[in-house]
Amino acid sequence: MAEETVRPWDETKIIGKPIPPVDGYERVSGAAVYPLDVILPNMLYGAILRCPHAHATVKKVDVGKAREMPGVRAVLTDADPETRIEWYAPMRFPGAPVAANSQASRLFDPHCRYEGEEVAAVAAESPQQAWDAVRTIHVEYETQPFVIDVEEALKPGAPAVQEGGNRARGFPGTKRGDVAKGFAEADVVLEETYRTSCLIHVPMEVHGSVAQWDGDRLNVWDTNQGPFGIQSDISRALKMPLSKVRVISNYMGGGFGSKQEAGKYTVIAALLAQKTARPVKLFLTREETFLCVGNRPAHVMKLKAGVKKDGTLTAFQLTAVNELGAYPTFSGVGGQAGELYQCPNVLIDETQAYINAGQSRAFRAPGYPEGNWALEQMMDALAEKIGMDPVELRLKNIPTVCQSSQNRPYTSTGLRECLTEGARVFGWREARSRPKGDGAWVRGVGVASGLWGPGSGPATVIVKLNSDGSVNLNMGAADLGTGTKTVAASIVAEELGVPLDRIRIENADTGTTQYSGVSGGSKTVSADGPPTRLAALEIKRFLLEMAAEQLKVPVANLDFKDGTIVVRGSAQKLAITELTQLRMQQEIVGVGRGRFVPGNKVVRSFATHFAEVEVNRHTGEMRVLRMLAAHDSGRVMNLLGYRNQVFGGFLQGLGLAMTERRVLDSDSGKMVNANFHDYKIPTAKDAPGEMTCLPIDPHDTECNILGAKGLGEPATVPAATAIANALHHAIGIRVTAAPITAAQVLTLLAEPKTRG
Amino acid sequence: MAEETVRPWDETKIIGKPIPPVDGYERVSGAAVYPLDVILPNMLYGAILRCPHAHATVKKVDVGKAREMPGVRAVLTDADPETRIEWYAPMRFPGAPVAANSQASRLFDPHCRYEGEEVAAVAAESPQQAWDAVRTIHVEYETQPFVIDVEEALKPGAPAVQEGGNRARGFPGTKRGDVAKGFAEADVVLEETYRTSCLIHVPMEVHGSVAQWDGDRLNVWDTNQGPFGIQSDISRALKMPLSKVRVISNYMGGGFGSKQEAGKYTVIAALLAQKTARPVKLFLTREETFLCVGNRPAHVMKLKAGVKKDGTLTAFQLTAVNELGAYPTFSGVGGQAGELYQCPNVLIDETQAYINAGQSRAFRAPGYPEGNWALEQMMDALAEKIGMDPVELRLKNIPTVCQSSQNRPYTSTGLRECLTEGARVFGWREARSRPKGDGAWVRGVGVASGLWGPGSGPATVIVKLNSDGSVNLNMGAADLGTGTKTVAASIVAEELGVPLDRIRIENADTGTTQYSGVSGGSKTVSADGPPTRLAALEIKRFLLEMAAEQLKVPVANLDFKDGTIVVRGSAQKLAITELTQLRMQQEIVGVGRGRFVPGNKVVRSFATHFAEVEVNRHTGEMRVLRMLAAHDSGRVMNLLGYRNQVFGGFLQGLGLAMTERRVLDSDSGKMVNANFHDYKIPTAKDAPGEMTCLPIDPHDTECNILGAKGLGEPATVPAATAIANALHHAIGIRVTAAPITAAQVLTLLAEPKTRG
Repeated sequence: MAEETVRPWDETKIIGKPIPPVDGYERVSGAAVYPLDVILPNMLYGAILRCPHAHATVKKVDVGKAREMPGVRAVLTDADPETRIEWYAPMRFPGAPVAANSQASRLFDPHCRYEGEEVAAVAAESPQQAWDAVRTIHVEYETQPFVIDVEEALKPGAPAVQEGGNRARGFPGTKRGDVAKGFAEADVVLEETYRTSCLIHVPMEVHGSVAQWDGDRLNVWDTNQGPFGIQSDISRALKMPLSKVRVISNYMGGGFGSKQEAGKYTVIAALLAQKTARPVKLFLTREETFLCVGNRPAHVMKLKAGVKKDGTLTAFQLTAVNELGAYPTFSGVGGQAGELYQCPNVLIDETQAYINAGQSRAFRAPGYPEGNWALEQMMDALAEKIGMDPVELRLKNIPTVCQSSQNRPYTSTGLRECLTEGARVFGWREARSRPKGDGAWVRGVGVASGLWGPGSGPATVIVKLNSDGSVNLNMGAADLGTGTKTVAASIVAEELGVPLDRIRIENADTGTTQYSGVSGGSKTVSADGPPTRLAALEIKRFLLEMAAEQLKVPVANLDFKDGTIVVRGSAQKLAITELTQLRMQQEIVGVGRGRFVPGNKVVRSFATHFAEVEVNRHTGEMRVLRMLAAHDSGRVMNLLGYRNQVFGGFLQGLGLAMTERRVLDSDSGKMVNANFHDYKIPTAKDAPGEMTCLPIDPHDTECNILGAKGLGEPATVPAATAIANALHHAIGIRVTAAPITAAQVLTLLAEPKTRG
Repeated sequence: MAEETVRPWDETKIIGKPIPPVDGYERVSGAAVYPLDVILPNMLYGAILRCPHAHATVKKVDVGKAREMPGVRAVLTDADPETRIEWYAPMRFPGAPVAANSQASRLFDPHCRYEGEEVAAVAAESPQQAWDAVRTIHVEYETQPFVIDVEEALKPGAPAVQEGGNRARGFPGTKRGDVAKGFAEADVVLEETYRTSCLIHVPMEVHGSVAQWDGDRLNVWDTNQGPFGIQSDISRALKMPLSKVRVISNYMGGGFGSKQEAGKYTVIAALLAQKTARPVKLFLTREETFLCVGNRPAHVMKLKAGVKKDGTLTAFQLTAVNELGAYPTFSGVGGQAGELYQCPNVLIDETQAYINAGQSRAFRAPGYPEGNWALEQMMDALAEKIGMDPVELRLKNIPTVCQSSQNRPYTSTGLRECLTEGARVFGWREARSRPKGDGAWVRGVGVASGLWGPGSGPATVIVKLNSDGSVNLNMGAADLGTGTKTVAASIVAEELGVPLDRIRIENADTGTTQYSGVSGGSKTVSADGPPTRLAALEIKRFLLEMAAEQLKVPVANLDFKDGTIVVRGSAQKLAITELTQLRMQQEIVGVGRGRFVPGNKVVRSFATHFAEVEVNRHTGEMRVLRMLAAHDSGRVMNLLGYRNQVFGGFLQGLGLAMTERRVLDSDSGKMVNANFHDYKIPTAKDAPGEMTCLPIDPHDTECNILGAKGLGEPATVPAATAIANALHHAIGIRVTAAPITAAQVLTLLAEPKTRG
């Protein structure tokens, strides 16, 4: 079925309702086999010895004792020729600038650029034996001077993390109009430096792989966000044809961006399995995941902004230094200032810097909550300065076209509705003017908007309607727990009238499903949903043709209603199963494929978050009392999943704003809080007492054949900033460096109020 | 790509060459995981208690002790309500007559109709513990009179195997012309009763399943010839949606027809797994497979034939009694006499009879080697009687149209070439006139022809061309060891120029591959080959379009050569991988689907086998010195696989002719040779000293878009009869009851020569 003839639904019966996850039972009962649960016959367990120094050179590795330890079946170090492969940090973003100055590292590179670099690996009969053996390996390190702060790293004479120096090519800057002219035209110009800390993804399931050789073919069970990317990484590292690398990740326990690429652990597991001719399971410990599998890097953002008294924005100038960690990756914060508001003069300049710490990886809207932290605090400050309500100032500057993309129109923009509907339901006006209290605890409310450009991508989905009317659905996409499978099943149920519990999904297996891109970029619905619908529509067309033949009625006179084919203007009808049974055991196969992007328009999801906080002016403590999120992500595909995404966004925003921060020790360069006790992710007890999700759902009819734009990342973009702005409303201070701690609050309260 | 625009290849580079199995390394190294090899974490082992009597009623089952045995986790008997499901012997042949008089049985039916019926089952921590427990189950049987011979079974007063009596509806008879008139016109009329024995399939891998529940979904690793049929059987038995039953059989160790359906063991494994909430492996012992999973049933065939002196056949009358075993199945022998020769008057009447023995199942050309045993010995006798060379008599009666199918034309018929070319290469004339020797050992040569109607069927195949030019191929068909995967890979290699070792196949998994019918009926090539080719052609078309865009040349000016796209009349060219790399990680997906049958014509494979034997007239011993098979199966897809099929056909023919026979004890009704020592399948030492495979390969351009008709079954159809005819040529006796034993030979030699 040609995509162009299909329009988004006008009415739906299942799509948009609160649908529980189709694999919920498996997930909560323990029946679901996550990669971490995989046990293969005769399996060994791997463990990795990692460099304990922030910066060091490996002089000598003695594994003599390790080889003799009980249960040990293989030890690998840089001395083993098969480990001398070229390892580049995989870059999963087409068109993303690969930072310069970086060389390929070896699997066990003697130049250890951060605490946690791989030095040796062991495979043994049990995890305990593997770890016991790792502990017997004696390594001579020559420690090197290190640098763990981006601003320090860029100074002359700083220790070089990469051979070419610590300054790496940044994102191409944005230059629009003339900022000098813009600032000159402004009535108010403010400038502030904002900082965000390095955060760790910490998904529930730790990272790891199980590798098993089947002749010259490699099967890998790996916890990831897209098996086809992992397949590609492994194939490149081991120089194997893609067809001989099978990556399976039917279930996975969260990623947030940290599982978009293969780790060295994946390849180490494969090599250990090859060496021992046995399957090898190599999963990281929680501590290792704090060090080695990515993070949301720290940023230093100097933002200067101009506004007229009437609220018209005249200029933004953003100068950012982005942390990379020890290897190149994706890191940029310009996405908000460049596009969220109508502004004729914009200059964005980003520099990326290596430091001696674990490499960053995409983390739920990479760079966007950070850029938002700067821009939306600045907007709040500008509003205050010109005496305008923060919501009003934002409404005044709603963009009409996509300024960062040749002024192309948006397929839809609900930012205005997010602000107005959000304010109305939140009770913004009342809350904003309500007395803040005169006790120790005072209250305040804040607002912040944000946007995100959800991706899309090519995918092929196969729907099989069985002879008994049940359905098998095969899709390549991984389900991160966000409900990708549930949405796909809902689409099929919507089109074919098949009950959800008769639909069985196989997904995320490069051997048996078809290509889908990584589940990231808030694009799973928009990339995998349309081909799912096309596949179902192909089946529908086939059924209509069968029915026409059976009923001796032209196809044009037939309608499809709730799993039944009815003849218009007649009582004649045929249930789907009356048709499928005619085909004996043979399924009806529908195939949907393609890449689904609107012609000349730009797709963006918009959001406005509101927060109410309570701050203790004596102790500096803060509590988030309630949050409301108004989202324009186009059509709601599953109201339950939608809410959960939004609430998760609140929590991760709260973490950025208030609790999370990787702490590197300035004396040793080592992470001092690589565990759940010292690295504090928000829990249910930290959650706002009241959380409201308000889908604006403007039924985008142009973004794709579903009308849904993408929600995962926008849900976290403005959350932290809304909290920071609420803090300012409560007690009049701005904490520009996240996270907001009681100590910072007390310090700032004690300072003379010179800040905006 | 529409099927109608595609023609079989004119020239090929890979197809037809001797290609080693693409999974040969895995199969011989032990890397291939057959269902018998599957080990799941926490798995239990099942064992079944079977009735030791040929006919009995279960009065009482005491499992009290079994439940207390070490390691036992579950015991199931007919007392457990979940076992009270309706079990019908699955009938996998659309349109095949289901024999009457049969009721559904229960899983543990108290009426045990044969030695080996299921009475109880146990799941325990080890196979040994399961068997120990089975042995403690005490059963009170009331034995019944039994019948184990079809002719006895049809006599009045015979013990009733099924409630409605032992006579079951047979195949619809053939009636063509007027046999009385035909016999009146004949110069010679002969009549003889031929018998074949019951043979056991004995594939290398015994039958069995591993069942694992994943919530409300059932995963079954099962050794079978078509997972979609097994899925359907399980779904029907357990009343589950097809989508929730996943059957996996990536590898399987032979079937010959015995693995076309689910066994009770499959469902018992599923129920034990459900009861214990653990995976259960239930594989039969070799002895059980002799009793319970099918056989090639015995037949009694009375054949009367008339011929004129000039060799013109005037009439065939065949009256057959076919053994069913204790339950209904497919069993008929009329396929040869009805069609192999031009004959205006034919009357075929078949009766099927139940006996107290294991049910038969399709066995490599079911009924055809048996029918051939009668027809082709008769042809030999007719030729002798009218003094004509047996090859000449056959050539005289080559059919021009398919007489058993409304005289529709054949897509191709190479029977004449099989006879003439076969005779030439075998040296028929010389061998036939050569002195037979005057010592104890005398020699003779024999010939027999045969035909088979290869099936076809719907299938969907998916070919994925990866960005590095390697290929993944997904197909539903099981590979019985006949090389289905190798043929599929060769088709893709032929079309796309991709080396075979860069093609990886996933197959036979109802969860992740698309429908294909059972691998049986010599139809795997003709059912699964065409969609494979269409899928590759779709990719080719896509590549040509990409190339046209890249090279700015119309598609019509491009040619595809050895994995490269060349511009006609120019040096410009593009390798496939230059195009695939443009697509980042995304594969190019080709889908082929459909059912591939020629419009109004009939597809038949033809064969003529020649045998030379040596017989000791003092001891009755016989050796097969050499065999030659001339086959018209259309295009040779893989010369190596072709030869192996033919040589395997010789061996199974030799088994039928000389060594194999299920022996039931007349006193007890029990099988006395249910093991490899007493049931003698031919081994390499029994093989003819010289085996020649002579493909006639007439390039059938009408049977389908490959030109290949199907070889698996024809290879065994005339083999036994050629041996029997060679025996007659050597020493002048006809052994009409297979197998030919030394004792029979001696007895017949001692008899006065009254036989033809």
